[in-house]
Amino acid sequence: MPRFTLLRESDLPPAAWRSPVAIRFGHCDPAGIVYTPQYFHLFNTVLEDWYGQALGASYYELIGVRRTGLGYAHVSADFAKPARMGDTLKVAVIIEAIGRSSITLRLHAFKDGIECARASFVTVTTSLIDHKTIPAPDDLRAAFEAYRERCGVAEPPAAVGD
Amino acid sequence: MPRFTLLRESDLPPAAWRSPVAIRFGHCDPAGIVYTPQYFHLFNTVLEDWYGQALGASYYELIGVRRTGLGYAHVSADFAKPARMGDTLKVAVIIEAIGRSSITLRLHAFKDGIECARASFVTVTTSLIDHKTIPAPDDLRAAFEAYRERCGVAEPPAAVGD
Amino acid sequence: MPRFTLLRESDLPPAAWRSPVAIRFGHCDPAGIVYTPQYFHLFNTVLEDWYGQALGASYYELIGVRRTGLGYAHVSADFAKPARMGDTLKVAVIIEAIGRSSITLRLHAFKDGIECARASFVTVTTSLIDHKTIPAPDDLRAAFEAYRERCGVAEPPAAVGD
Amino acid sequence: MPRFTLLRESDLPPAAWRSPVAIRFGHCDPAGIVYTPQYFHLFNTVLEDWYGQALGASYYELIGVRRTGLGYAHVSADFAKPARMGDTLKVAVIIEAIGRSSITLRLHAFKDGIECARASFVTVTTSLIDHKTIPAPDDLRAAFEAYRERCGVAEPPAAVGD
Repeated sequence: MPRFTLLRESDLPPAAWRSPVAIRFGHCDPAGIVYTPQYFHLFNTVLEDWYGQALGASYYELIGVRRTGLGYAHVSADFAKPARMGDTLKVAVIIEAIGRSSITLRLHAFKDGIECARASFVTVTTSLIDHKTIPAPDDLRAAFEAYRERCGVAEPPAAVGD
Repeated sequence: MPRFTLLRESDLPPAAWRSPVAIRFGHCDPAGIVYTPQYFHLFNTVLEDWYGQALGASYYELIGVRRTGLGYAHVSADFAKPARMGDTLKVAVIIEAIGRSSITLRLHAFKDGIECARASFVTVTTSLIDHKTIPAPDDLRAAFEAYRERCGVAEPPAAVGD
Repeated sequence: MPRFTLLRESDLPPAAWRSPVAIRFGHCDPAGIVYTPQYFHLFNTVLEDWYGQALGASYYELIGVRRTGLGYAHVSADFAKPARMGDTLKVAVIIEAIGRSSITLRLHAFKDGIECARASFVTVTTSLIDHKTIPAPDDLRAAFEAYRERCGVAEPPAAVGD
Repeated sequence: MPRFTLLRESDLPPAAWRSPVAIRFGHCDPAGIVYTPQYFHLFNTVLEDWYGQALGASYYELIGVRRTGLGYAHVSADFAKPARMGDTLKVAVIIEAIGRSSITLRLHAFKDGIECARASFVTVTTSLIDHKTIPAPDDLRAAFEAYRERCGVAEPPAAVGD
């Protein structure tokens, strides 16, 4: 019994950005399913693309050029159904909260249209010079707010009975 | 500001099993600190050793021979201070709850004796034949209970002011 | 000075299958470039796609359903220029040799059209029941031969002076 | 049939530094054996320890503080027998050649005293400021030479018949 009510992909706001994620041989463990730590790597690749494609703010430039860290103060995830090599998940990103120097993101992973995993990430903006917390840069904050606005609601409107 | 009150290693019950974890070059990212997904891999290696060394139940035999899955239904972690390559963390394991087919484990990671990360894992026992939930095998449950008994308390007794 | 003469992507046979590879944050190390072991993971993902897309033989079905192992007896790689997060490489696959139970594959990775890494993999077909060597299945061998035929030559016809 | 004559651990020079390597759940793939890219990660952790323990030159300080890159221009490996989760390999390091700005290292991995994998790494010293090749620092070169001297010979003296 999963710890959350599974969504259908169509339950999410249409404007919620989503991305396919291919499950590879090397992501899986001897139990034949995705090794949990690899899930977090896959979720990070989704967020990397989300910054660039949905926010127009390159993750790689933020970190590599502007030296703005986007590390995590908190991460959590629930797993409802195992994913296997050869599967392609669809992962969507929702903004839950925007703080002065943090942002809370929720990721919904779907397999065949039904949610199989859900994760929450609290990202804190830091200076990569001294690893101290800094306010989110203005352009980034504006992009966060525009995205949240576009999606309309933080909470998904409906849920699959379970 | 971390989301939890940081412990000293000495705040944990003396019987709480703990293990050193070396932070390697390949665990770190271009920000120079442990890549968050690698933390979950490192935590998993700690749990692998805990099964064998603290419970006397080989993780590898459970999975590889007895075909008992020990996957995660829920994972969460909070990160207070970054760890870097060359650091050696100390990671301790506490049992929070024992269910019929699940166990909730809390890991405390210490750097120089002060907590730098804390994680919680809900492990569900499954059959690796069909990936269905099964009750924890009797010997494993007995080992969980003996360990919890030895540690005396689930909740750490004291906390470093923050 | 690289240990091999760098090719241009256009030096390869037009029929050589190629695939884009996105370099992610988590693939890179504190030196800011791809961590070498991650290169081998990325090359493996390329080969997974190559089996499915160029040969019409799903890598995941071969391993997961038909229980045919495609492990490596030999791997080597040369690295000429570092790749960084945010880069997208193009990686092409060439068949060097087809044996009874092994195949030798060469991968050429290009950054901005110029070769930055080259790798060679000797894959041995095994039974995943007992990890013993078996002849390549007939359909797979036929697909290897058809691909090699299509590409025309094993050796690339021309080289960038270095 | 392996591509090299398998050694016994006792065939190596006694002064050749060696280190245990625990094979973890997360290092293994759905075929139940070490995922080849993870081998290269494990070999890198061995080399990290070798720098510190056998040469007295901390790998982490070289890279993190002195900003001396120790990346690879060439990597190769042969795999004779699969390793599984729960195995502990023994890995030894031999210096094959010392160049002005490169060093060639050979790693021998043993399972139950018999070689199961062998790898060769050509490390090039670079400046991590501009990723350009630099001569090996004098203290490092002296440590390389002392180690090679201690081991006596680059070539292992005897071989297991195969």
